[in-house]
Amino acid sequence: MHLNRAYTPPPSSRPPVGRPFELRSNIPDGTLHHVTPLTPVHFLLRAALVRPDKLAIVHPEQGYHFTYAQWAARVLSLAFALREVPGWRNGDRVAILSPNVPLIADAHFGVLAAGGVCTPLNFRNSPKEIEFILQHADVRVVLVDHAVAHLVPPNLPSTITVVVSLDSGGQRKDDAYEAFLMRGHVAWQNAQQYAGGARDWALLTQPADELVTCALCYTSGTTGRPKGVEYSFRGAYLSALGNVIESNLTGDSVYLWVLPMFHCCGWTFPWAVTAGMGTHYMLRQVDYAQIWDALLHGGVTHYAGAPTVQLGVVNAPQAKRLDHAVRVLVAASAPTATLLARMEGLQLYPVHVYGLTETYGPSTRRFAEAAWQTLDLDARSRLQARQGHAMVTSDETRVVRRTEETQTDTVLEDVQRDGQEVGEIVMRGNMTLKGYYRDPDATAQATRGGWFHTGDLAVRHPGGEVQILDRGKDVIISGGENISSVMVEQELATHPWVNEMAVVARVHPQWGEVVHAFVLLSPEGERALAGKDPTAATAALAQTLEAHCRQHMSKFAVPKTYTIVTELPKTSTGKIQKKVLRERIARL
Amino acid sequence: MHLNRAYTPPPSSRPPVGRPFELRSNIPDGTLHHVTPLTPVHFLLRAALVRPDKLAIVHPEQGYHFTYAQWAARVLSLAFALREVPGWRNGDRVAILSPNVPLIADAHFGVLAAGGVCTPLNFRNSPKEIEFILQHADVRVVLVDHAVAHLVPPNLPSTITVVVSLDSGGQRKDDAYEAFLMRGHVAWQNAQQYAGGARDWALLTQPADELVTCALCYTSGTTGRPKGVEYSFRGAYLSALGNVIESNLTGDSVYLWVLPMFHCCGWTFPWAVTAGMGTHYMLRQVDYAQIWDALLHGGVTHYAGAPTVQLGVVNAPQAKRLDHAVRVLVAASAPTATLLARMEGLQLYPVHVYGLTETYGPSTRRFAEAAWQTLDLDARSRLQARQGHAMVTSDETRVVRRTEETQTDTVLEDVQRDGQEVGEIVMRGNMTLKGYYRDPDATAQATRGGWFHTGDLAVRHPGGEVQILDRGKDVIISGGENISSVMVEQELATHPWVNEMAVVARVHPQWGEVVHAFVLLSPEGERALAGKDPTAATAALAQTLEAHCRQHMSKFAVPKTYTIVTELPKTSTGKIQKKVLRERIARL
Repeated sequence: MHLNRAYTPPPSSRPPVGRPFELRSNIPDGTLHHVTPLTPVHFLLRAALVRPDKLAIVHPEQGYHFTYAQWAARVLSLAFALREVPGWRNGDRVAILSPNVPLIADAHFGVLAAGGVCTPLNFRNSPKEIEFILQHADVRVVLVDHAVAHLVPPNLPSTITVVVSLDSGGQRKDDAYEAFLMRGHVAWQNAQQYAGGARDWALLTQPADELVTCALCYTSGTTGRPKGVEYSFRGAYLSALGNVIESNLTGDSVYLWVLPMFHCCGWTFPWAVTAGMGTHYMLRQVDYAQIWDALLHGGVTHYAGAPTVQLGVVNAPQAKRLDHAVRVLVAASAPTATLLARMEGLQLYPVHVYGLTETYGPSTRRFAEAAWQTLDLDARSRLQARQGHAMVTSDETRVVRRTEETQTDTVLEDVQRDGQEVGEIVMRGNMTLKGYYRDPDATAQATRGGWFHTGDLAVRHPGGEVQILDRGKDVIISGGENISSVMVEQELATHPWVNEMAVVARVHPQWGEVVHAFVLLSPEGERALAGKDPTAATAALAQTLEAHCRQHMSKFAVPKTYTIVTELPKTSTGKIQKKVLRERIARL
Repeated sequence: MHLNRAYTPPPSSRPPVGRPFELRSNIPDGTLHHVTPLTPVHFLLRAALVRPDKLAIVHPEQGYHFTYAQWAARVLSLAFALREVPGWRNGDRVAILSPNVPLIADAHFGVLAAGGVCTPLNFRNSPKEIEFILQHADVRVVLVDHAVAHLVPPNLPSTITVVVSLDSGGQRKDDAYEAFLMRGHVAWQNAQQYAGGARDWALLTQPADELVTCALCYTSGTTGRPKGVEYSFRGAYLSALGNVIESNLTGDSVYLWVLPMFHCCGWTFPWAVTAGMGTHYMLRQVDYAQIWDALLHGGVTHYAGAPTVQLGVVNAPQAKRLDHAVRVLVAASAPTATLLARMEGLQLYPVHVYGLTETYGPSTRRFAEAAWQTLDLDARSRLQARQGHAMVTSDETRVVRRTEETQTDTVLEDVQRDGQEVGEIVMRGNMTLKGYYRDPDATAQATRGGWFHTGDLAVRHPGGEVQILDRGKDVIISGGENISSVMVEQELATHPWVNEMAVVARVHPQWGEVVHAFVLLSPEGERALAGKDPTAATAALAQTLEAHCRQHMSKFAVPKTYTIVTELPKTSTGKIQKKVLRERIARL
């Protein structure tokens, strides 16, 4: 970490001098003595009390950092600044447009402390989508990082306060976010004069109802308009504790912010890392040189990202075996055998997790089994690729039959645990969304029978673990047979010529659909096909992969046609955009 | 671990054969889709699903063990057996009189699953106390281990079912507990015939209200009648998760049951170890040879116990440096510098915790600080001896002024955080008792102002950590000065001649009270005083310790008189009985 040692935090980030910092918020009147409503803000206050001088946030790129005591002061300044916004009311939405910088981490505590709803936006969304969300969420305040400030619609009503951050950590006098915090700090100091001795955090009162909404995360909306997923204080608290346990976050943990924090509230890790009293290591963008700097010199112990990001990490020129183990959470799909081997060789140990925006990010995890130790890498990576079991704070994950009856019925029937019968993954409990904001119909439809319907098709194995076959819309139907695109991809992934791949349906006069594969070659694949013209290379690839696939899968599922690509289209959160690939196929 | 490999678990402990084990209980009708009422039983069901073949319980002494799948089946058999008890109703109390054997671990899940209240009794209590508690709790069932079966009053009403366990794990046909479980197993099988397809755990429904009482722990009652402390499902769940995090319990953890499980529901560790999917290692009694066998050969990673137990551990002839680190939770008082050094030399790393029956066992913990690394052992042990900060799932611990006003008032005033001002420790929140069973007056008195009053006197340091000076009744008042017996003891403990010690008030004509010290010599102390007659030895000890104490404490606090003892009277949970020592002094 190359932190500027001369850095002095701004006054808004300074805990009180000369007296103890009051870090206990008021309990609402009438609360039972044996109940404290759950809130993730508690984790920050506790860390600031127990570990005031511990580095809570480091931001080497910008040369600043905050200890837990400083961060708790800064967050309190933010809470007061928000409450000073004209017309502010409890429950008001605060949008955040920001890369992984302290601004958005602040918001995950300060907005909640102010009684607002933390509403992080995906800055890779189109301006039109962002405008839609700002309107739909009816936001009162927009906190925005300078790099994405152009995404704020120019014609916002004057009732919306927009605050632009220069990500200076108080080092620049023209940083409007710092001025905003300073106004909050003054309001905090003033409030103490009329509070009958109450100081600091005791000027604020915890929410009385832990089921109140604390955050709103809009889905990226591959189909239709984005939907606002509501998280509760209780859900956020319990999900965060679950992540502390499942990821073994402790005071020695350093979490590198590769995963966008706007994505499902960073999978609740802003709260979880803080509950563990670890350190948040900020990163403005996915830059592999910086990631390796953090891994090699920053003491990083954890990070999360899609397999695409992992590929970038292992392929970076700076990659070398670490002197300590790093736990890597991988979602979307599991690492291939090749990637798994390369990661483990570098001391990066992947854990495969699965979830949706609607489940506070990952709510299932693949647990390693003792029997795997005797398996070869290929077999192990196949087992590891399953989505697994529910986390400790989540209810058991079910796969239920998709019949006409159960689609409308309130009684859900489980599929056989045979690894064969296909159904839909459903979830419920404390790690499931409250509902879609201002959309009771979509909420009712998604939670029919008391369970949230993910739309993802899966089987359950005899061990109870869930394995996704496909997102509902990605299934390929050939000659009446359902083909899981995920299963085909996993087979392709085991071939040494293949680096990345995606398969989609291609219209076929006889079979209805057949499987078409897009393949990004590995260095070995490139060497094997070097010197061939594109047509010959594609033909050679097709021949090789067909022979490979025939050994492992039904004939009807083997890809019939191939395209060699140098890049696959991805969503802002790293998922391959099959819709784009299907359109490309349609043009062939 | 010397487990009998030929052991076959009894049918009541066998999960279903030929079909998956259903490990999901029903959610009560009307429960919101985004809420699952918290219950620690969930941890067992999840472990049995994720890790069916993992050893949940090992009991080497008796040569049997259970995997998580087996244990979950056994617990379900227990739940059904209880529901078959004539007249059984939800909320009925089930008393358990047992050393640390599977019986009492079973009860921590099975009684809750049956809708009952787990009521573990201290088998070291007098028969009269036990009789009182059984009456006061109005128990429906008593589960009792054969070794303490004589403590069950002979004249119990016939409406109370008593089940005696031979701790055979099903290896003996005459084991009444096994027969009881088998009746439950039959009831479970029968229930499936009329349940419309519901099986196993789905035959039961989770509690709808997480604030319902799930356990009742009677305080040992040094003054007056024992009081029944009520735990809620929510409190038990959150306390257990807190312990998972604070003790870093994982699937690799092996928890050795040294601490009595009847004590505050084993500090919630029956649930916490299971939440971590670790292994419970049973121990019928505190036997140091067996403890060392478990440490050296059983893979033990965690245990808990009072300093007395730690002394026994380090002094055992089998003691030798372990090849792995063991985390040791130490309550009641902190290890002395000497003990700390010896423990660390063996790779036993103590964590000092503090709590009461009323706070689900420990709810504060001393967190090590980075600055300690440069300190000598003595200074470090003094800092470590503080009670510290609240655990992650607990509210901040307060120390409040004890004035006439605040004793009756609802407004509590914090003491200064200066390490000087003495007040009373108060606590609230999810890790605080619901109340005293059938004693609304005592509950109201103990929780006045919305905070549970511990009766323990303490200061708060500038860092916010709490340090106990004394249990309220143990303060010594000499010449108008309040003397903390704990502080004096900590000074004595730093002298190499001292192994254990306790100081109490001795009546004095001039000063009202003076400090009298009972000292148990260390081997070094014994060598130094060898050959002296008792009077000369006591005089030499007094001279040495007085000189030692004078360097560190006020003159009025230095013990004036001494008694060399070979044993100190202790309660059943390892606390020194100062009441007995005061009586002894009065007779001098």
